[in-house]
Amino acid sequence: MTDRRLQSSVRIVGAGLLGTSIGLALTEKGVDVTLDDLSPTAVKLAVDYGAGRAASANRGEHDQPGLIVVCVPPDVTAVTVAGELTAHPDALVTDVASVKQSVLRELIAMGADVSRYLGTHPMAGRERGGPISARSDMFVGRPWVLAGHDGITYSRAGAIEDLILDVGAVPIEMSVADHDASVAMVSHVPQLVATMMAARLTGATNGAVGLAGQGLRDVTRIASSDPGLWVQILAANAAPVAEILRGLRDDVDSAIEALEHPDAPGARRTIADLMGAGNAGVARIPGKHGQDRRYATLVVMIDDTPGQLARLLTEIGELGVNMEDLRLEHSPGAPVGFAEVSVVPEAEQRLVTELEARGWKIAAAGTD
Amino acid sequence: MTDRRLQSSVRIVGAGLLGTSIGLALTEKGVDVTLDDLSPTAVKLAVDYGAGRAASANRGEHDQPGLIVVCVPPDVTAVTVAGELTAHPDALVTDVASVKQSVLRELIAMGADVSRYLGTHPMAGRERGGPISARSDMFVGRPWVLAGHDGITYSRAGAIEDLILDVGAVPIEMSVADHDASVAMVSHVPQLVATMMAARLTGATNGAVGLAGQGLRDVTRIASSDPGLWVQILAANAAPVAEILRGLRDDVDSAIEALEHPDAPGARRTIADLMGAGNAGVARIPGKHGQDRRYATLVVMIDDTPGQLARLLTEIGELGVNMEDLRLEHSPGAPVGFAEVSVVPEAEQRLVTELEARGWKIAAAGTD
Repeated sequence: MTDRRLQSSVRIVGAGLLGTSIGLALTEKGVDVTLDDLSPTAVKLAVDYGAGRAASANRGEHDQPGLIVVCVPPDVTAVTVAGELTAHPDALVTDVASVKQSVLRELIAMGADVSRYLGTHPMAGRERGGPISARSDMFVGRPWVLAGHDGITYSRAGAIEDLILDVGAVPIEMSVADHDASVAMVSHVPQLVATMMAARLTGATNGAVGLAGQGLRDVTRIASSDPGLWVQILAANAAPVAEILRGLRDDVDSAIEALEHPDAPGARRTIADLMGAGNAGVARIPGKHGQDRRYATLVVMIDDTPGQLARLLTEIGELGVNMEDLRLEHSPGAPVGFAEVSVVPEAEQRLVTELEARGWKIAAAGTD
Repeated sequence: MTDRRLQSSVRIVGAGLLGTSIGLALTEKGVDVTLDDLSPTAVKLAVDYGAGRAASANRGEHDQPGLIVVCVPPDVTAVTVAGELTAHPDALVTDVASVKQSVLRELIAMGADVSRYLGTHPMAGRERGGPISARSDMFVGRPWVLAGHDGITYSRAGAIEDLILDVGAVPIEMSVADHDASVAMVSHVPQLVATMMAARLTGATNGAVGLAGQGLRDVTRIASSDPGLWVQILAANAAPVAEILRGLRDDVDSAIEALEHPDAPGARRTIADLMGAGNAGVARIPGKHGQDRRYATLVVMIDDTPGQLARLLTEIGELGVNMEDLRLEHSPGAPVGFAEVSVVPEAEQRLVTELEARGWKIAAAGTD
């Protein structure tokens, strides 16, 4: 918290999941937070949670926010930001919408003073929304993008970076165009791909879905996301998403062509090249702690009692082995599950030996 | 184990991951297992692991297998099955290849006696192959498909079902056509979809992949699968996979069209309908224990020390709450992680209260 922050309050517009969570985190840090929302009920609820105080109706007299954070749905973000820029001619205004170029474009079209606007995007939040799900530690350790643009007066933008650091997030600077292209790649297209795979299952037999394993579950997990929100997000980031989808369509076309003529020259090569590109692509995703290293994985059989997984993890801890990742697998109808435990490769053999000596069944082991 | 089983040995052809695992499981049950493989080294290794005894070179005299299980790569499965049917004119022969119609078709084309052949497919195994990864409990609780066909003499097929039950798996009967269509839906197309999403990442910036979250990780996890194996699988199940991909392509085309003209009439409706179909599709995947129920999910912040997750799970166990699922989340560069704990909705509020009272930070809670 800086001295400058003490001199002025932060105004949050929109007391939903993100706005309330930011208010909670800043209030914990001693920042004076005022909350505003079209819904007086939402403001009262957020105030009750301790996310700040209600904005005065006669705001000109009492509230002189140095920084305003707009946390409203994507489709009303630009108009809300423009209103705040006008109402508070000395304040710096930011927003947290998940698409940034369309907001900036709308603001410029409206003639707003974008020298006082810098959009941001916290890579946090949950599928479950509303102030009732808000938590002050929602942003701890998460990337939070500052989406820069040519019109901003950067000497003032430090206040936004301070806010990001105050709530425990990791500030990452990129241009609005780079931001939108990046989230199209790592968030919006993956959402559509999961959705389109899941949509196939509407026509599947019960016998087929009964064979579903962990692979299908993982691929389709995010397909349960809220359609209304995603229509707004995808429409606002339409061009970057469409560009990546055109590349995807080329791959789908190639795969169909190869599979319709699997014995034609080059058909198997087409599939092999595609699988190879998938191997190369997934290897680019940073692992835990941003590392790119591979871990050894042990699959340990556990029965379905409350204490068994805890006992396994306790024993792994007693052996002094740090677990890098953990994944549970279940099979329909089975009374047992499998815990997939990732450790550094150097620890694998000893862990297998020690766990087996303690009576655990190791269903598989190896390095990815 | 039946009396009939005691009277005859099971012969396993192919001492890789699946063959060795089946051998281990049957040997534990007291079944007499003989192992054969083109590689004498593989047989010796599997025998050393305790998966059975080496098949006699002079097999006619010593080995009279009642049941033969062919566990070789998909592209040599049919020719191997045919050879076994000829060499052992009284034996029932099965295989474990992940595609069934092409094997049967090849056998019929070769004039093999398919009245003694019944293909199966254990929905188990791991990305990591070879006898060294073999485990006797690999099949416990997993579905194992018996892929029936008109030519089989079913009065003999009980021996295969006994084998499936002996290794702890759950037998599921379906026709070869239904099997292949089912695995195209729940395994082969999801593999291609994950691969094609991951292939996009080869062209992503470092900044973009640095924003990758759990959603992208889940969608692309299986994209690291072995290209060589998947070329065989996809080529062998080309028609059912291509049929589903054509439906997927229609969705990709619709999405591109809608996103290229996001303000055209119906564009947003197209995206909303697609998202809705994804919601409906993912809801069809059975949950743990084959149930379709929803769970409440708590996201608990944990730091990166070996004992902390174990302590959390121990305390959840002490509270008498059964954890239905567990997922770990990490953010690049952060010293903390998040444990997403799924419980029955009735237990959620008490668990939140009790865990917070014990000092845990709950980052989010709610029902999917």
